[in-house]
Amino acid sequence: MSRPPFTPIIEALPPLVPFIGPEAMERARGRAFQARLGANENVFGPSLHALAIMREAVNGNWMYSDPENYELRSAISKFHCVSIDNVVVGEGIDGLLGLTCQLFIVPGDRVVMTQGSYPTFNFHVLAHGGKVVGCPMLDFKEDLQGMAQVARDTRAKLIYVSNPNSPMGTCWTGAELARWISDLPKGVLLILDEAYCDTAPVGISPIMDTSNAQVVHYRTFSKAYGMAGARIGYAIAHVDLIAAFDKVRNHYGINRIGQLGARAALEDQSYLSSVVQKIDRARIRISQIATDHGLRTVASAASFVAIDCGHDGEFAKRVLDGLILRDVFARKPSVPPLDRFIRVSCGRDEDLDVFEKALSAALADARSR
Amino acid sequence: MSRPPFTPIIEALPPLVPFIGPEAMERARGRAFQARLGANENVFGPSLHALAIMREAVNGNWMYSDPENYELRSAISKFHCVSIDNVVVGEGIDGLLGLTCQLFIVPGDRVVMTQGSYPTFNFHVLAHGGKVVGCPMLDFKEDLQGMAQVARDTRAKLIYVSNPNSPMGTCWTGAELARWISDLPKGVLLILDEAYCDTAPVGISPIMDTSNAQVVHYRTFSKAYGMAGARIGYAIAHVDLIAAFDKVRNHYGINRIGQLGARAALEDQSYLSSVVQKIDRARIRISQIATDHGLRTVASAASFVAIDCGHDGEFAKRVLDGLILRDVFARKPSVPPLDRFIRVSCGRDEDLDVFEKALSAALADARSR
Repeated sequence: MSRPPFTPIIEALPPLVPFIGPEAMERARGRAFQARLGANENVFGPSLHALAIMREAVNGNWMYSDPENYELRSAISKFHCVSIDNVVVGEGIDGLLGLTCQLFIVPGDRVVMTQGSYPTFNFHVLAHGGKVVGCPMLDFKEDLQGMAQVARDTRAKLIYVSNPNSPMGTCWTGAELARWISDLPKGVLLILDEAYCDTAPVGISPIMDTSNAQVVHYRTFSKAYGMAGARIGYAIAHVDLIAAFDKVRNHYGINRIGQLGARAALEDQSYLSSVVQKIDRARIRISQIATDHGLRTVASAASFVAIDCGHDGEFAKRVLDGLILRDVFARKPSVPPLDRFIRVSCGRDEDLDVFEKALSAALADARSR
Repeated sequence: MSRPPFTPIIEALPPLVPFIGPEAMERARGRAFQARLGANENVFGPSLHALAIMREAVNGNWMYSDPENYELRSAISKFHCVSIDNVVVGEGIDGLLGLTCQLFIVPGDRVVMTQGSYPTFNFHVLAHGGKVVGCPMLDFKEDLQGMAQVARDTRAKLIYVSNPNSPMGTCWTGAELARWISDLPKGVLLILDEAYCDTAPVGISPIMDTSNAQVVHYRTFSKAYGMAGARIGYAIAHVDLIAAFDKVRNHYGINRIGQLGARAALEDQSYLSSVVQKIDRARIRISQIATDHGLRTVASAASFVAIDCGHDGEFAKRVLDGLILRDVFARKPSVPPLDRFIRVSCGRDEDLDVFEKALSAALADARSR
């Protein structure tokens, strides 16, 4: 073999996979899941309007979509009251997180994030040679002051905050975040992942101030908008940052059907409100199911609920395995002390019926061992 | 402003855009194109089967698609008689080219490609700090021996070859390429972009030998398969290379509708054959139109024809501007000596009628100036 060597960064990378998909688990089990409650997808799906637009768009799929994503960016910029030059569209937030790392990280750079938080961000940091400095949660909330201090101590370039947070569903208010942002350490960029903000009270989102070059907001059509398969995310930031994304992004990377569907979904805010109500009802029901089984939950602003299985991580793993055995796809954090929780996505009544029954049996099994 | 600095690579990058999209041109003109013949899209579109599958898939768009792209990779691997571990799926070939650069290029690394060849590859090389060494065409074909020599002289890591080539449509036979590959300089990886191979005689594609770690084959559903908007490309290579892609790719980056549609399109090879016939008829017609206007063309194996406008680059630019003025979207290379050509994608009869009429007028204008 005489191919060129991989870069030193690549050579040093372990074979990492951010999340095993439910399809791989189904292949391994030889059986489909009955309730898909592990990836925080929104089973209620997008609006009828968005569905119709996407069906209609199939015939035009012989065309590349507009590499400037102009119509979608234009709609997004009006929605958020920013300029179109403050908006970049990517292949989900994941794609934009990878590009952000490419823009800022040189090998050895420090990045601060909460321990047990979004592993895909971690994945992208490592792929660019960065080093993740983990900060523990404080009362199951991301520790803003602690992260800022760690960033100062380690001269970190990036701080990753998800608000609401996954896997716990907790959040800070927009006012609290804005005050914290005004005091961010110099030379630090805040990666504010707002993937779950659409299911939270409006007050949790700080106003987007695009004159502040220290903050990038990330949003997605994958969660409340019910279009995870479309892979459309966007970032809002200072024009200089957005211009830098244009230097490295895959200009023709956005699929056409998703791009048109996302714009239609954004236009249908009354549908979004109705879905958020359904998600809220599902959150209440998941908490009730947990309580009925003697378990506690963390109040969630996101489209899932973290359930404390009441013992250690090993016990929670047994509960999770019991759910999966009973055809319920769910996930759990692996980092202590979060590892004693399981995370269950909001679903329809029939999904949660399956979950309820499976949880009873899984808990009985786990407790009897 | 106290954000962290961009990396030195990013700071040094000029604001580059690989290709201005036709939508941007339409916005600037304030008028839609009548014939979309500039991006080598396939107006004949995908098969009815693939269209039906994509329409059906819209309802499932609330789900992420399988991050392992298992079903699609499985179908691709069977089609090419390779293992599934030799296949990676990406957001078009463009996405995979970017990842390839990330795997191999450290700042200052040399990459060899034909002058005037695919600008998007150039874009990705620069975004990773690489240096492109251009090699002129030889009789409008990529100069394989010349490129190998340049790679030896500059100790280049990558050689980019497109077969058939864009923008000229010329190609080498599979046998010629295989002989050349067997003698590739040590330490060089061949990026073999076969985006246009499906409209060429089958003999132009060298057999995929996945035991050879020096070659990566890139294929796409954007051209002959008629699904440019779906953004599904794939690469076939040695297992070690594919495993490396997994270390850096956006695992959840592939849209679900496109993934399902691509598999359906691959299954419908008889439809593909019928489309390739239509494309061949369009190639003949474009050449005839050129001949009727006293212009020469280069024999093309791709889904477009390069037309020699007979004078210099400036004259060809006037012809192109005349086409665009008359609502025909076409493109032209900007690098001499290719710059005296315009490139016209295959289209339906009605598209080529519009082109024929516009060409007459555009040529008359250009010649009268």
